[in-house]
Amino acid sequence: MSVPQANGPKSIKNGWFTEISDKHFPGQGLSLKVDEVLYYAHSEFQEILVFKSSNWGNVLVLDGIIQCTERDEFAYQEMISHVPLFAHHNPKRVLVIGGGDGGVIREVVKHSCVESVSLVEIDSTVIELAKQYLPNMSCALYHEKVTIHLRDGYQYLREVGSNPQQDKYDVIITDSSDPDGPAEAFFQREYFQLMNDALKDDGILIAQASENVWLDINYLSRLVKTARSVFENTRYCYTTVPTYTSGQLGLIICAKDSKVNLTKPQRTPSSEEQQLMRYYNPQIHYTSFILPTWADTLVYDTN
Amino acid sequence: MSVPQANGPKSIKNGWFTEISDKHFPGQGLSLKVDEVLYYAHSEFQEILVFKSSNWGNVLVLDGIIQCTERDEFAYQEMISHVPLFAHHNPKRVLVIGGGDGGVIREVVKHSCVESVSLVEIDSTVIELAKQYLPNMSCALYHEKVTIHLRDGYQYLREVGSNPQQDKYDVIITDSSDPDGPAEAFFQREYFQLMNDALKDDGILIAQASENVWLDINYLSRLVKTARSVFENTRYCYTTVPTYTSGQLGLIICAKDSKVNLTKPQRTPSSEEQQLMRYYNPQIHYTSFILPTWADTLVYDTN
Repeated sequence: MSVPQANGPKSIKNGWFTEISDKHFPGQGLSLKVDEVLYYAHSEFQEILVFKSSNWGNVLVLDGIIQCTERDEFAYQEMISHVPLFAHHNPKRVLVIGGGDGGVIREVVKHSCVESVSLVEIDSTVIELAKQYLPNMSCALYHEKVTIHLRDGYQYLREVGSNPQQDKYDVIITDSSDPDGPAEAFFQREYFQLMNDALKDDGILIAQASENVWLDINYLSRLVKTARSVFENTRYCYTTVPTYTSGQLGLIICAKDSKVNLTKPQRTPSSEEQQLMRYYNPQIHYTSFILPTWADTLVYDTN
Repeated sequence: MSVPQANGPKSIKNGWFTEISDKHFPGQGLSLKVDEVLYYAHSEFQEILVFKSSNWGNVLVLDGIIQCTERDEFAYQEMISHVPLFAHHNPKRVLVIGGGDGGVIREVVKHSCVESVSLVEIDSTVIELAKQYLPNMSCALYHEKVTIHLRDGYQYLREVGSNPQQDKYDVIITDSSDPDGPAEAFFQREYFQLMNDALKDDGILIAQASENVWLDINYLSRLVKTARSVFENTRYCYTTVPTYTSGQLGLIICAKDSKVNLTKPQRTPSSEEQQLMRYYNPQIHYTSFILPTWADTLVYDTN
């Protein structure tokens, strides 16, 4: 791993990091106080910043957007993992695209029924940084059920879908960054089609939607339509994350089987599994799909 | 109304307003871009700022804390009003303490069963500013069912409770600012006792909790205990508001009748009433009480 640069990024001024985006959320900013810049560099794929914050633990930032803080990361990792895994009756083979920080992997291996997890991460720097600075997230990266592929997720999926010898997946989790950087392709119809081809007939996928109902709800509505052009059974749910702009993040979840009720867990966490979870429980699963009236209307707008 | 001062407050720098609080949420900040300062002055009670933001409409700030923006205020006003009003089987007399901006009043008068609403606001400047700069919130302040009392809410409640001739209330809504300014007394046991004395036997109250589960959850837990020392039937619920730090705000709701299930609406909105509501619906009522596992444990911690 390269040595961190001494100069910090432009997003840090007077000891505060600020997340702003004229394109995605103009006119608002979210700031965290910086105790120390731990790493700052441009990898082959993106600008990477890791800093120690005064009150939220270590923070990973990709292309200026907060990916996680140690204090609240479980809200994201648990919901993007456990909602699709408990919506599935018996997930054994799981694919995680992105998520090199290891947070999703940590949650997936809590399911005793899961037999194997493949992690496809394009940027090895993210994995190395997580091992060094986010030990509670990266702790399961070398779990016996996990295989890491340092690959482009899009290409990986294409190979899986076109190879009749390759076992398909029960659950695919796309834990990508936002669509402006290397993750841009993960928000297109072709990507949902590739996931469809890589899933078993009773398979389920989830992807972070990069938006929420308060920011660009029209984008969300288009994303739901995009997903529905491949998966009739597409739903929107969300998790609350205070260090994401607006305090929440949307998730798009799809099932190949049009009759599966994604809002209802198909399995109940064992008491052992539930004890390992701080955010998720069967009630939160259901409630994460319930939207304010205005948002429900717009997200599922069919015009 | 006094003429706005030409100099803006310290909370605006380089065209951005930033909300920070070393005491309540150290190490984080929320910023909105300022197009124009519309009003800035110290009233008898507090520092008042109104500005036109670039993307969130006009914004009211008291003592440095955002009270509302025109774009997302309905999320707060609807939930603090409709959750207690629909949890009550037949609310006729409603008392609103604080809330001089008129937003809560606007929601309360949407209930056809409500016959009278008393608004007790200590600071007349807030009412005048709302009429000028927040017309969609202040629009119901002169509704025929509304009586405005320019009084201290604490004193008003004391008089109601000690006067046997005075009709008691079905629902009391405390729409205060945070506990550091003139609203400090609204977070003490004595205040809950005064509300108890001013409520009918089947009465319900709600108060903004000034915190949420992501910020000072121990404070919330103490507030729930304080309320429970008067009302055995006390629950915590929340609403999502992107321009509040962390993106959500907690609400404390109490019923004098220990058998009432506050999480379940006792009435269904008529189709006319539902059409007037953008955020609230009966499902959101229930889900606003469902917390992530860790938060549920701490908020209701009895130790």
